Amino acid sequence: MTFPAPLTGVVPPVCTPLTPDREVDVPSLLRLAGHLVEAGVHGLFLLGSTSEAAYLTDRQRRQVVEAVVGHVGGQLPVLAGAIDMTTPRVLDHVRAVTAAGAEAVVVTAPFYARTHPSEIVHHYRRTAAASPVPVIAYDIPVSVHTKLPGDLLLGLAADGVLAGVKDSSGDLGAFREIVTGARAHAGFSVLTGSELLVDAALAVGADGAVPGLANVDPHGYVRLYRLCRARDWEGARAEQERLCALFGMVRAGDPARMGAGSSALGAFKAALHLRGVIDCPVTAEPQVPLSGDEVAKVGKHLAAAGLL
Amino acid sequence: MTFPAPLTGVVPPVCTPLTPDREVDVPSLLRLAGHLVEAGVHGLFLLGSTSEAAYLTDRQRRQVVEAVVGHVGGQLPVLAGAIDMTTPRVLDHVRAVTAAGAEAVVVTAPFYARTHPSEIVHHYRRTAAASPVPVIAYDIPVSVHTKLPGDLLLGLAADGVLAGVKDSSGDLGAFREIVTGARAHAGFSVLTGSELLVDAALAVGADGAVPGLANVDPHGYVRLYRLCRARDWEGARAEQERLCALFGMVRAGDPARMGAGSSALGAFKAALHLRGVIDCPVTAEPQVPLSGDEVAKVGKHLAAAGLL
Amino acid sequence: MTFPAPLTGVVPPVCTPLTPDREVDVPSLLRLAGHLVEAGVHGLFLLGSTSEAAYLTDRQRRQVVEAVVGHVGGQLPVLAGAIDMTTPRVLDHVRAVTAAGAEAVVVTAPFYARTHPSEIVHHYRRTAAASPVPVIAYDIPVSVHTKLPGDLLLGLAADGVLAGVKDSSGDLGAFREIVTGARAHAGFSVLTGSELLVDAALAVGADGAVPGLANVDPHGYVRLYRLCRARDWEGARAEQERLCALFGMVRAGDPARMGAGSSALGAFKAALHLRGVIDCPVTAEPQVPLSGDEVAKVGKHLAAAGLL
Amino acid sequence: MTFPAPLTGVVPPVCTPLTPDREVDVPSLLRLAGHLVEAGVHGLFLLGSTSEAAYLTDRQRRQVVEAVVGHVGGQLPVLAGAIDMTTPRVLDHVRAVTAAGAEAVVVTAPFYARTHPSEIVHHYRRTAAASPVPVIAYDIPVSVHTKLPGDLLLGLAADGVLAGVKDSSGDLGAFREIVTGARAHAGFSVLTGSELLVDAALAVGADGAVPGLANVDPHGYVRLYRLCRARDWEGARAEQERLCALFGMVRAGDPARMGAGSSALGAFKAALHLRGVIDCPVTAEPQVPLSGDEVAKVGKHLAAAGLL
Repeated sequence: MTFPAPLTGVVPPVCTPLTPDREVDVPSLLRLAGHLVEAGVHGLFLLGSTSEAAYLTDRQRRQVVEAVVGHVGGQLPVLAGAIDMTTPRVLDHVRAVTAAGAEAVVVTAPFYARTHPSEIVHHYRRTAAASPVPVIAYDIPVSVHTKLPGDLLLGLAADGVLAGVKDSSGDLGAFREIVTGARAHAGFSVLTGSELLVDAALAVGADGAVPGLANVDPHGYVRLYRLCRARDWEGARAEQERLCALFGMVRAGDPARMGAGSSALGAFKAALHLRGVIDCPVTAEPQVPLSGDEVAKVGKHLAAAGLL
Repeated sequence: MTFPAPLTGVVPPVCTPLTPDREVDVPSLLRLAGHLVEAGVHGLFLLGSTSEAAYLTDRQRRQVVEAVVGHVGGQLPVLAGAIDMTTPRVLDHVRAVTAAGAEAVVVTAPFYARTHPSEIVHHYRRTAAASPVPVIAYDIPVSVHTKLPGDLLLGLAADGVLAGVKDSSGDLGAFREIVTGARAHAGFSVLTGSELLVDAALAVGADGAVPGLANVDPHGYVRLYRLCRARDWEGARAEQERLCALFGMVRAGDPARMGAGSSALGAFKAALHLRGVIDCPVTAEPQVPLSGDEVAKVGKHLAAAGLL
Repeated sequence: MTFPAPLTGVVPPVCTPLTPDREVDVPSLLRLAGHLVEAGVHGLFLLGSTSEAAYLTDRQRRQVVEAVVGHVGGQLPVLAGAIDMTTPRVLDHVRAVTAAGAEAVVVTAPFYARTHPSEIVHHYRRTAAASPVPVIAYDIPVSVHTKLPGDLLLGLAADGVLAGVKDSSGDLGAFREIVTGARAHAGFSVLTGSELLVDAALAVGADGAVPGLANVDPHGYVRLYRLCRARDWEGARAEQERLCALFGMVRAGDPARMGAGSSALGAFKAALHLRGVIDCPVTAEPQVPLSGDEVAKVGKHLAAAGLL
Repeated sequence: MTFPAPLTGVVPPVCTPLTPDREVDVPSLLRLAGHLVEAGVHGLFLLGSTSEAAYLTDRQRRQVVEAVVGHVGGQLPVLAGAIDMTTPRVLDHVRAVTAAGAEAVVVTAPFYARTHPSEIVHHYRRTAAASPVPVIAYDIPVSVHTKLPGDLLLGLAADGVLAGVKDSSGDLGAFREIVTGARAHAGFSVLTGSELLVDAALAVGADGAVPGLANVDPHGYVRLYRLCRARDWEGARAEQERLCALFGMVRAGDPARMGAGSSALGAFKAALHLRGVIDCPVTAEPQVPLSGDEVAKVGKHLAAAGLL
C-alpha cells in the first residue's frame, strides 16, 4: 500500500492499554485498533503523546507497532511516533518503528537540548534522509517548548523533506498560514491535533485531524469529518459541540493532586474501560491515577454523550 | 569502593569526544578522563548535559560508561546520567549504566510529559527503589522546564530517597535554602552546576561543584575548591574570576546562526582539541559547528587564561 | 444610546495617529474614525494595544477619547481601554475615560504584579462595582502573561460582573468553550481579537471581532462579517484569506532590528499613511520605525489587496 | 547633597503603609522611614515593587515621595521608582517623582509592550536624556518578563546613560558578570535585590543591596553589610542565615488562596504591624489579605529571629 499523499481524514493517536503491572496489554490494544478501524477512521497514529509514548520503553514501543501492524496493516495507513530528544536518538526509533512496519514516522523538534531554527531544519533533513518512509513533523509546544515556525515547515515541504505536519499547538491562526502556504506543495498533509476545532480546521482547509478523544468516540469524529467534507457546516458544528462537551472529561482529575496529562490520559483510558474496549484503565508511571469519584465524572460525560 | 556520603569536591560532567563520523572516540575519551583524574578532580559525571547525553544513542551511552569505568574505575567515584522522559524509560537507563559500572545515577524530573510535583516525587521514589546505586536529582530547568522545589528535594532527602542534588538552575537563593535545609540530612550532597559561582556556592555551604568548564581547566577548578576549603576567600575570588573570563568562550558561536548549546558545547570541545586532549572537536547532530573564526575566539580565551 | 447587549459586529481597535513630535494628531484621528464609521463598522475600541495605549500618557489617553466621542459619539458604541497594572490604577483610568465619554471599558487582568485567579476575580468585581459603564475583560496573554481561565470568565458573566470578553489569546479552542458557556448568559459578548480567524470565530458562535487590521481595511472586515452572518462560509473564507494575506504586512520589519510590536504597529500606520488616511506614520517611543524598504513592503501588501 | 557615585550600602525598598480604606498612611510611612534611618541604612528606595508601586495611583505615588523627602531628605539619598509600561509614561513619572524631591529614578525595561533589546536601549537613553537626576536600571524579570542583558547594561554604563542597576533577577552568575564588567565604569552602582544572597553578592563585588526584608529587620541588614565590608565572611554568613530564616515569612500565605506577591507583601506589612512600626497591615487591592493563622506564622518568624 502506498502511503497517501496527502494523508487525509481522521487519524486517531491510539491509546496504549496497559496491564495492571504496566506491560502493554496487547489483546486490549488490538481490540482498540479494531474498534477504531470499524468506526471508519482513515489511519492510525501509534506512539504519539496520547499513546503515552514518552512513558513506553523501547521494547514496549516496538511491541505496540508490531502488534497493530500485524492486526490491521494494509487496511489503513499506520503512522508511528519516533519521539526522542535529538537526531541520533530519533534515528534509532525511526529504524525500530519502520522495521516493525510503520508506514510513516512522526517527529518533533529536538527537546531537552536548547535548539535553534537552523538546528531544527538540519534535524528534519537528516531524519528524512535516513528514513525509509515519509516524515511528518509533530508540532507540540506544550511538550517540546518550541513552536515550529510556519516558514520553516513550508520550506521543508517545498524541498520534499516533510510529508506533512501534525499541529498540536492550539494556534489556529498559525495553522491557517501553514494550510494556505501548503497549497503550493501538492501531497503535503496538514493535520490538526485539536479535539475542539476539527470543524474549524477543516473549514480553513486542513486535510485531517488527529484527536485523542477519537479513541473514545471514533464514530463521532468520522461523522464530523464527513459532515465537513459535505460542507454541511451547521451539522458539523452540532457534532463538534457534542464532542467538545465530551472532551470535558479531561478535567476529571483534581488539579491539586495531578498534572493535566494524568487527568486527560486517565480520563481517556477510564472511558475506554467503561465502554468495554480495554481491560484496565491504568496509566504509566509516574502518572497519578484517577480516583473512583473522578472516574464517575468520566462516566457522566460518556452518558451525556450517549456512549454508555 | 563505597560511594561517598556526601559526595564532595569537583566532579566534572565529562565531555564525550566524537570521531568525525560521530561515533564515540574512546581513545580521546580515556585521555580526557585521565587528564581530569590527574588534575585531582574528586569524581566524574558521565552522560550529563555537557556530555551531550541527549544526543547519544543507548549504545553510545553504554560505551561511554564502560570505557571510563574500565579506565579509571576505583580511583574516584563515577556517576552517570539516566536522562530520559519518564520513569519507565529512566529505569532502563539506570539498569544499563549501573550494569556498565556507574556508582551513582543522576536523574531529572520527567520532561516532555507535563508533570506535577506529586508525580516528580513518585518518579524519584520509584527510581530509587529500583536503583542498585544512589540517586542524585538533577535540577536543570533550562532543559526540563520545571524547577525542582526545595521542599520536595528536602523531603526526599529526609526519606533517604535521594543522595544529593546537582543544581543547574542558576538560582543561588533557592540553592542556599536547600544547602541549609540539607544540614539535617547527613550524607546528602548539594552540588552546584554553575561555572561562575563555585566560590559563592561553597561559601554558602555547598559540598561541591559540577562545572562543564572543568573539562577545559580542571586544575583551575581543583585549585578553586582547595582555596574555598581553606577559607581563603580572596584567593578563591581571584581564581573564580579567571575562570569566569575563560567561560566567556561559550559565547564564541554566532547566536544568529546557532543555539546557545551548540555554541557552549562546541567551545568546550574546540578548547579540548586546541589543548591537545581530544582528537576531533565535532559535536553531535543537529548541532551547528563553530566556524574557523569562532574557534579562533576560543583560542584567544585559552591564551588569555594561560592554557595554550 | 444604550450600550448593546451583546455587543456584536466589527469593532476596530483604533490606531492613534501621532504627529512627528509624538503628540496625538487629532485631525488624523478623526479622519481615521470617520473612515471606519463610513465603512460600516459596529463600534470603536479606543486605547487598546493596537492604539498604543501602553505608550500614551494619561493626558493623551483622555484627548483620544474626548476627540473621538465628540466626533462620532451617538453613531456607534465607543469603548475605551483602561489598561494599567492593578485595580487602583485601573479605576483611575475608568474614571477618566468614562468622564471623556466612553460607553464601556476594556480591562485586562493585573500585570507586573504576580497574580492569582482569586485576585483576578476580585480585580474585576471591584472594577465593575466602581464603573458607571459595562466592563469587558481583555484577554491578552502576550502582554499580561496570564491567560484568563474560561471558568473564571463565565463565573463573572453569570454574576453580571462582566459584559463580555475580547480574546486576543490566539487559543480558539479555549475561546470556543467560552462561546458555548456564554450562551447561558444572555447579553454577554464574546469577541475575537484575531485578524486571521474572524470567519472561524463567528462560525463557532462569536458575537464579533476586534481586528487591528480593520484600521487598514475596514470594508474587508465588514464584508467578512456580513458573509458570515449570511452563512456564506465559502465567500467568507475567500474574503478572510484575502485579509490574511494583507496581514502579512505585520512582518515587514526586520526582527533582528525591532520587536514584533514595532513591526506590526509600524506597518498598520504606514498603511494608513500610504492610503492617505493619516498624516504621519510615526509610532510612539521606544518603538523602532520601519525603514523605507520596509514601508515599501507594506505598500506591496496594500497593492496586492487592491487597496492602493 | 550630591548623589553618591557609586551608591553603596543597604537601600531598603520602603513599604507603603496604607490606612484601612487604602489611602497612604503618612504617619506610619514616616515612622517606617525614621525606623530605617535610625538603623543606619544608606539610602531609601521609594515606589519599588515592595512599595506596592504597581498598586499606587499617581496621586499616592507623589504623596509618598513628598512625605518621605520632607521627613528625611538630606540625611541620606532617596531614590524613587518610575514604574510604567513605556517611555512616555515613564517620563511622566520621572517628572513627578523628581518634582517631589527624588534624587535618582529607578526604571525597568518596557513591559506589557513586547520589546526588543534595541528598544530597551532607546528607552533608557530617552529616559536619561529627560531626567534631571541619575537613572538606575531595575532588572526584575518576574514582573517585566524580560531579563536585562549584561552587555546592554554595561554599554549604557560606558556611555554614562545609567548610574547603576538594581538586580532582582535572582541570577547571581549574570550579576557577577555585570559586577566584573562594571569595574571599568567608575561610579556605576551594582545592587542586588535579593534578600538571601547579600553576603554572596557583596563577596563577588556588589556595591550594595536593596532587600525588601530590610523593612522588617534593617539592623540585621546593616550589620550584615558591615561584616561583609570588614571581610568577616564567617560572621556575615551567620547573620545572612538568620535573615534567610526570617525571610521564610514570605511563604506564610496559602498558595491555594493567593499569589506569591500577596503572601510576601502581606507578611512584610504584618511583621511591621506586629513590631509596632505601622498602624495597619492592609495591602492594596486586589491582593488577598493574610488570615489570622497566617499572621501568626509571621509572628513566629519574628519571635525566632528575636524581633518580638
